[in-house]
Amino acid sequence: MHTRWFNEFHVGDKFATRGITLTEAQIVDFALTYDPQHMHVDATAAEAGPFGGLIASGFQTLALSFRLFYDLGLVVESNIVGPGMDEVRWTAPVRPGDTIKTAVEVIEARESRSKPDRGTVRFQFTVLNQRDETVMTYLAITIIRKRPEGSAD
Amino acid sequence: MHTRWFNEFHVGDKFATRGITLTEAQIVDFALTYDPQHMHVDATAAEAGPFGGLIASGFQTLALSFRLFYDLGLVVESNIVGPGMDEVRWTAPVRPGDTIKTAVEVIEARESRSKPDRGTVRFQFTVLNQRDETVMTYLAITIIRKRPEGSAD
Repeated sequence: MHTRWFNEFHVGDKFATRGITLTEAQIVDFALTYDPQHMHVDATAAEAGPFGGLIASGFQTLALSFRLFYDLGLVVESNIVGPGMDEVRWTAPVRPGDTIKTAVEVIEARESRSKPDRGTVRFQFTVLNQRDETVMTYLAITIIRKRPEGSAD
Repeated sequence: MHTRWFNEFHVGDKFATRGITLTEAQIVDFALTYDPQHMHVDATAAEAGPFGGLIASGFQTLALSFRLFYDLGLVVESNIVGPGMDEVRWTAPVRPGDTIKTAVEVIEARESRSKPDRGTVRFQFTVLNQRDETVMTYLAITIIRKRPEGSAD
């Protein structure tokens, strides 16, 4: 997809990403460095735990789901910064072999009052697995540049 | 520190972690897989960007700040699951060579109505750099087990 500048995002716009499959090795590798809880690194302990087996760190699901959106190419040039997220919820486990994909909807687009070259776009992210079950939801706030003067894109 | 069970967390309890230094290699390695925006992987492009140089992915700062808390050992045995986060805000960039640490405060502790073995604890996380500037804040929701019957710890 082409770059979208601020004025090209409208409330209700929807985007869907490709999927990505999480292997057991990827889940354990990420967790060893970033989130070494039993349920993410120790298959035996995880079996006896609340999910009955290894599950991915929620931080890994979060980052990958945003990357899938980023890979669409919409905001590669236009994104200035992401100041935050709200209502982050992990609603179902992601297990080794699961394939996640991201559905994104624009829920707000507001021009900056102080900086005329940009606006704030709020996106509702829904992360789904291969059975179309929702595994995670969040609202991401992004600051998006308006089309630069003289830009042809 | 010893495990703390649900009833041992009280509103106003505060915890401080050790620090961790992020190198340029760690920032780029994480971002290549999880958040390949220019500002996180391309030092030259980042120099011309809004932060004037490479900065860490906010997802990396988030995961590391939670790991620092986890490494205190308080919730290693007592944490059941983390259903979500609210009001996640990245307030200042984390640059190569910066050292981050986490300050955590209990802002709510509420017994479960349906499950007598657990309660919900809400923690305010504040991530600081080596100059004690706040680089990130968030509220984390965790489900914490009560002390198991017969447990000596």
